[in-house]
Amino acid sequence: MRLSQYFLPVSREVPKEAQIVSHRLMLRAGMIQQSSAGIYSWLPLGLKVLRKIEQIVREEQNRTGALEILMPTIQPADLWQESGRYEDYGAEMLRIQDRHERAMLYGPTNEEQVTDIFRAHVKTYRALPLNLYQIQWKFRDEVRPRFGIMRGREFLMKDAYSFALNADEARIAYNKMFVSYLLTFKRLGLTAIPMEADTGPIGGDMSHEFVILAETGESAVYCHKDWLNDSLDAGAVDYDADLQPIVDRFTTLYAVTDDKHDPKTCGVAEADLAVTRGIEVGHIFYFGDKYSAPMGAEVMDDSGKSSAVYMGSYGIGISRLVGGIIEASHDDKGIIWPKSVAPFDVGVVNLKADDDVCTTASEALYARLIEAGFDVLLDDRNESAGGKLNTMDLIGIPYQIIIGPRGMASGQVEFKIRESDKRQDMGIDEAFQAMMETR
Amino acid sequence: MRLSQYFLPVSREVPKEAQIVSHRLMLRAGMIQQSSAGIYSWLPLGLKVLRKIEQIVREEQNRTGALEILMPTIQPADLWQESGRYEDYGAEMLRIQDRHERAMLYGPTNEEQVTDIFRAHVKTYRALPLNLYQIQWKFRDEVRPRFGIMRGREFLMKDAYSFALNADEARIAYNKMFVSYLLTFKRLGLTAIPMEADTGPIGGDMSHEFVILAETGESAVYCHKDWLNDSLDAGAVDYDADLQPIVDRFTTLYAVTDDKHDPKTCGVAEADLAVTRGIEVGHIFYFGDKYSAPMGAEVMDDSGKSSAVYMGSYGIGISRLVGGIIEASHDDKGIIWPKSVAPFDVGVVNLKADDDVCTTASEALYARLIEAGFDVLLDDRNESAGGKLNTMDLIGIPYQIIIGPRGMASGQVEFKIRESDKRQDMGIDEAFQAMMETR
Repeated sequence: MRLSQYFLPVSREVPKEAQIVSHRLMLRAGMIQQSSAGIYSWLPLGLKVLRKIEQIVREEQNRTGALEILMPTIQPADLWQESGRYEDYGAEMLRIQDRHERAMLYGPTNEEQVTDIFRAHVKTYRALPLNLYQIQWKFRDEVRPRFGIMRGREFLMKDAYSFALNADEARIAYNKMFVSYLLTFKRLGLTAIPMEADTGPIGGDMSHEFVILAETGESAVYCHKDWLNDSLDAGAVDYDADLQPIVDRFTTLYAVTDDKHDPKTCGVAEADLAVTRGIEVGHIFYFGDKYSAPMGAEVMDDSGKSSAVYMGSYGIGISRLVGGIIEASHDDKGIIWPKSVAPFDVGVVNLKADDDVCTTASEALYARLIEAGFDVLLDDRNESAGGKLNTMDLIGIPYQIIIGPRGMASGQVEFKIRESDKRQDMGIDEAFQAMMETR
Repeated sequence: MRLSQYFLPVSREVPKEAQIVSHRLMLRAGMIQQSSAGIYSWLPLGLKVLRKIEQIVREEQNRTGALEILMPTIQPADLWQESGRYEDYGAEMLRIQDRHERAMLYGPTNEEQVTDIFRAHVKTYRALPLNLYQIQWKFRDEVRPRFGIMRGREFLMKDAYSFALNADEARIAYNKMFVSYLLTFKRLGLTAIPMEADTGPIGGDMSHEFVILAETGESAVYCHKDWLNDSLDAGAVDYDADLQPIVDRFTTLYAVTDDKHDPKTCGVAEADLAVTRGIEVGHIFYFGDKYSAPMGAEVMDDSGKSSAVYMGSYGIGISRLVGGIIEASHDDKGIIWPKSVAPFDVGVVNLKADDDVCTTASEALYARLIEAGFDVLLDDRNESAGGKLNTMDLIGIPYQIIIGPRGMASGQVEFKIRESDKRQDMGIDEAFQAMMETR
């Protein structure tokens, strides 16, 4: 992509309305624009990141055998009356009357809707286990939306729903999602810690929230320091095997948010206790027949007896993760994207667009990198060198190849790694090779 | 994908509520499920097709230089008050009050929203031309939703918005979309005819609707018979060149829907007049400063003078196309997907899942086809042979490789082409090669 033909409204000004760093940087980097309180448009750069996160989440869901569907945003109220949640849910539910005065709502979550799909089609245990997920926009009418897309009203969420014949099978489904969340967040470049959680309006017996570590996070986190160096290797996971040992390993070590921490009972020696901050980006629930029983979602077992199916639900805040990743990975110059979600693989900066040598070299390198399969942002604008370098740092492209007249006089360009700020002069062929080695 | 682990609730029964063939087949093939009137969930098979269409539309939009963004579904009413459309739009607009009693709405289209983004960031002609598009769910509260997803209330649409300095540049933007629509529908396996159209609630001076031909379509179409054999070759299109000759070629030949046809004035000899039926799947508009003037979206030209920007908007009904393609391509056994949008490339049918020879051969072929990059549906269920063959025909997979005990006795399988119903016995290696040759 040529920056001259892109829509990237970056800004040097620090927006007054933004209280947290991810919100400030998303506005300054031209990733989002507010439409109304807590509701945002995604501009090209922001949307690219959102889609990359979405795709990683999708791939990791598919790997577990979960099947993607898509439910509508507007649901009929009567489904929620069946489950009993229509009255309970409160003012966060956006309630709507259609032209025929039927009561509708903008779904804040989809337990009822997916249970309705299930009960229409599945009658026998032979169709189980089943896990249906979607990646769809939701709405929660927060009383005070804030922190940009981190606590917005319209937000993109992956929500999965598992159906099983009995509690043991339901636990297997829960464990699959637990493990897949560890792998998903790792691919996103994040350290995520599962913590026992309250079940809130979803309800149920068992629940974990996944909290990613970020110094600027919303909650204080107290955890055993071994958390900071532990992570799950994708190669070690076989979804057809018993996952309980992995779940046990990742639930035994101490980790809680501040509201649950008690130094007297935590049982971790002070030297082993890490105190940091975190952001909740995922939440999984096991709730048995809470929805299936009142809604009549029953399956027949191999003896011919029907009973309500055992369910769980599993959410990942995809739009929230865009902010979460920035909170976890930025510096005073801007965003530092992990490679897996970076909007472009590499930026080529032509420092002097009216210089033939620089332009010829930039264009040739741009074409060669595209040919090799990289997603490249070429700054071909006739702007100041300083502004161009600041923009590349602000929007956080992992690698930059900077082409200016001084270097070109001796055939050199600068290869820069955004995260470490390591810079090195080298020939153009070497810079191309350096990019090939980042794969 | 193994059918034993998929969620494909097919049905032999013809649903009573469905009046048109695409609606009947989508329900029978387990592609969608109604949530409430005119609102549907997309089940795994339906969603795969929807996403394939979406991706083709996206690629063709990107090829023109249009940039993808994503606007929220819920818009503030005040934007529509600025343009004057809030009162005009009528009961099809889903109007919503949030918890603070602010007037909101579920966007039926996005001219105001995108103009708001534009005016916040673009002030100079140097940023033009610009075309921003999104693929997002919309809502129109139809008084009588019908025909399944063909005339639903919540629907997925690609909507693009072009911004230009003057009327000439705006015409260039319009022509790019016009040509890209021809290429898009062709890739979807459709014959689409652009027709001069009324502008309706979008407004403006110039408009074309794109009507795909289908014998079961909603409107009668009268057109010169040369239309039926004409199509645009992607290789002949250079978006940087003058596209007017292509637009002229595709607007000169006679083509109208029945409400505009007058045999006395049509000017086409009876022998050259084709009478068929069609479905509107796209609509493009040029409307100058209809939104930019009242909303103050102005740019400065090279003399320093500011004036309202010239705009157009361009829609493709992506969810509607799923039904439109089925209307254009089906037989009495079910759907016949064009290769470009088929949910799977090939089906492997193991006629006898409890036969070792059949199962070993099916599994080996399944693995080999996946390895070669095909998206394969393996029917590995322990069901009747007839039911399996009917299912593959119903869901319209373009190629089927059928493996049964009788054929396997002499090492033969049946290779079947869904569209032509051509069947041929051959060895497994040959069947694999036949698939390779479909690329």
